[in-house]
Amino acid sequence: MKSKFKSVEGAVVAPLGFRTGGVFCDIKRLGTGKGSDKGQKRDLCLLVSETPASVAGLFTTNQICAAPVKVCVPRVSKGLAQAVVVNSGNANACTGRKGMKDALAMAALAEEVLGLPEGRVLVASTGRIGVQLPMTQVGSGIAAAAQVLGTSPEHAAHAAEAIMTSDTRPKTVAVEFRIGGKTVRIGGMCKGAGMIQPGMSPNGARPATAPAGLHATMLCFITTDAAIAAKPLQSALNEAVAGSFNRITVDGDMSTNDTVLVLANGLAGNTPLKKASGPGFVAFAEALRHVCLELAKMIVRDGEGVHRVVTVRVEGAKSDAEADSAARAVANSLLVKTSWHGGDPNWGRIIDALGYSPATVVEDRVDIGYGSAGSKRILWSLRRGQPTKTPFADLWKAVQADEFELRIRLNLGKGSAFIYAADLTEEYVDFNKGTIADPSQAGALGG
Amino acid sequence: MKSKFKSVEGAVVAPLGFRTGGVFCDIKRLGTGKGSDKGQKRDLCLLVSETPASVAGLFTTNQICAAPVKVCVPRVSKGLAQAVVVNSGNANACTGRKGMKDALAMAALAEEVLGLPEGRVLVASTGRIGVQLPMTQVGSGIAAAAQVLGTSPEHAAHAAEAIMTSDTRPKTVAVEFRIGGKTVRIGGMCKGAGMIQPGMSPNGARPATAPAGLHATMLCFITTDAAIAAKPLQSALNEAVAGSFNRITVDGDMSTNDTVLVLANGLAGNTPLKKASGPGFVAFAEALRHVCLELAKMIVRDGEGVHRVVTVRVEGAKSDAEADSAARAVANSLLVKTSWHGGDPNWGRIIDALGYSPATVVEDRVDIGYGSAGSKRILWSLRRGQPTKTPFADLWKAVQADEFELRIRLNLGKGSAFIYAADLTEEYVDFNKGTIADPSQAGALGG
Repeated sequence: MKSKFKSVEGAVVAPLGFRTGGVFCDIKRLGTGKGSDKGQKRDLCLLVSETPASVAGLFTTNQICAAPVKVCVPRVSKGLAQAVVVNSGNANACTGRKGMKDALAMAALAEEVLGLPEGRVLVASTGRIGVQLPMTQVGSGIAAAAQVLGTSPEHAAHAAEAIMTSDTRPKTVAVEFRIGGKTVRIGGMCKGAGMIQPGMSPNGARPATAPAGLHATMLCFITTDAAIAAKPLQSALNEAVAGSFNRITVDGDMSTNDTVLVLANGLAGNTPLKKASGPGFVAFAEALRHVCLELAKMIVRDGEGVHRVVTVRVEGAKSDAEADSAARAVANSLLVKTSWHGGDPNWGRIIDALGYSPATVVEDRVDIGYGSAGSKRILWSLRRGQPTKTPFADLWKAVQADEFELRIRLNLGKGSAFIYAADLTEEYVDFNKGTIADPSQAGALGG
Repeated sequence: MKSKFKSVEGAVVAPLGFRTGGVFCDIKRLGTGKGSDKGQKRDLCLLVSETPASVAGLFTTNQICAAPVKVCVPRVSKGLAQAVVVNSGNANACTGRKGMKDALAMAALAEEVLGLPEGRVLVASTGRIGVQLPMTQVGSGIAAAAQVLGTSPEHAAHAAEAIMTSDTRPKTVAVEFRIGGKTVRIGGMCKGAGMIQPGMSPNGARPATAPAGLHATMLCFITTDAAIAAKPLQSALNEAVAGSFNRITVDGDMSTNDTVLVLANGLAGNTPLKKASGPGFVAFAEALRHVCLELAKMIVRDGEGVHRVVTVRVEGAKSDAEADSAARAVANSLLVKTSWHGGDPNWGRIIDALGYSPATVVEDRVDIGYGSAGSKRILWSLRRGQPTKTPFADLWKAVQADEFELRIRLNLGKGSAFIYAADLTEEYVDFNKGTIADPSQAGALGG
């Protein structure tokens, strides 16, 4: 499907009035010296708006949530912010009172160096759990990042690198569109890789109807020069995340740190969007949804050890919630995920997972088929619970693609849902087993 | 902990009046000839009581349930049976009306060859999903098995082999104890390996409070010469399975075929146990629980690719149901399971999984520690959400063992639960990816 949005360069600094910079400050205390000139991956970035911006955010619903999340929730609720400071290599999660103090200090250091009032800087962290932030390094990193702020695509690339952990590549997008005759831009960057099955809400509170087993840290920072008030901005973000980041899974583990933030500084000069309706809002919401979906898909494609990306689409469930639970059961089944890795069109494992999902499933109603990106045709392997006459070689070919769609029809109602999922590979296991040959190498906990 | 039960030889034929036999009949239609004398793994067995026996059973709560399960549920509910016929290599699941006809025919063939009235034989299958049973082979297998029935440990070993799929070894146990002065025996055999997280109920109906995401086929056949009526037998089995088979997970996938059956023929001559109370019943129930627990642990130890077995024990939850959901979230977390494989005492991943579980968890209440089999001492790595001073090398050493206990205290209430869980290894992924180099090799579906 061709996008209706014009892609532009610059990621988070594509919108007017934003500057960013990423540096290496040795958060993991590798002791290999400072500065990315030594070939170290950047691990801290600043993202700054020229002017105060409307802000909206969504956060992990994990009950164990990191200090930076606890700092952001009340700040975002005030609707106004001007900068974000982010580090990788340390999650500042399960770090107790000292962790909270450090997260606040991290924001305060950025406020000081940027000359902003207290409360105007948001903070995010990703990396090891249970290790205290090295505040000397964080402090020198913030000072260094403030020195290198800029608006070039290279600046954006440095920031996108600085938020990566086990990601193999930076993930960015930016689009341009029009609201009431004015050109508006939205840019974004994100990181993911492992511990990925976000289930975020605006205040981190768990919805009463949380999908069973919501679960790498994903961080996403979005900028826009649209003029939009905080409330409609939050509405647009809620809807965009519900259809993107909250619909992905790499390994089914929900992180303590998942965070999506959007800053809107209004410098595009459109008539300010004050409510969540009207053509201007609709155009903005649609563009934001597009940006979130593109970034979310990048996270799955770059998931730890991922070889194949599969869109699991469930239709005809008794309700959307049942469709979601059915799709997640399939998307997180180890036997289904390993069969995707092997390129095996194994419907037996799929119907097994549907059967133990919380969704209502009736064997002789179930259809299971495969589609390919860019084609509307579905190759059905199972219809009404019975194997079809589709040649096995055709089904086999469909699941050899790097990306394909698994279409499931329960034929019981009108509920539907999709999940962007990934295969499970030996590389994932090898990467995450974290074998420690020398136990004197302490502190290698969490993350 | 030393067992109070005397182990005896003979597995399912240790109790008086039972005969068994296992044969190779080429269920997978390998076309390599018949008979295990050709070095083929046995794939069909009969287990027969001399006299009609009380029967009890539990079955998968997967909504997609195999034909043999559908045949057993009503037969078991009548409380009387005399034999079981079991095949491996084909699950007879998702096989429609023909599958039901075949499951009934399989029982009828056994009834005929054994000279039993209709309805007296129970049936179980395990293996590929979605492939019709090869009834010619099944028929010749039943006839052959009936010819080789016997009561020696070798007979029991052949039967235990015949029910194996990806299991690397047979799993059997038998104990002897006394009821009211009479010696009574209980013997059992089971199979497991992959698609293992049973959640069974007496009629396959899902409990209203099913743990989120209950999920290899496990089959278990238990014999006893105790005299006990069907109702108290079912009560004892319900309680034994709740504390054993329903508390294990290899990969979190619940099968379409999970089945536990117990036949009690009364030949021990004890005063018949007519209700689920009294010292005789208590002794019987305790022995049955012991047999089920030993067999359940064998399934986890022999799970696909399993290197380490971990008992996840959660205490201090708000309720037993919350403790169960917390234990299952930890036991099924890919990041926790891979860290077990690596021998990494990573509490960050554990507390992360607790936080996204449906159970109530408060960060600064959580204790996480490790114990070893045969020792009551727990090495605490986290107390009240804070890392302890336990040397990392000690924690590291605790998780290098082939089996250890992970002790979690939520410190919020009195709920407790345990799950026998396994690590996730590259071998599991490699074994289950089922790569098909030649797609003309059709029919390699399911299972």
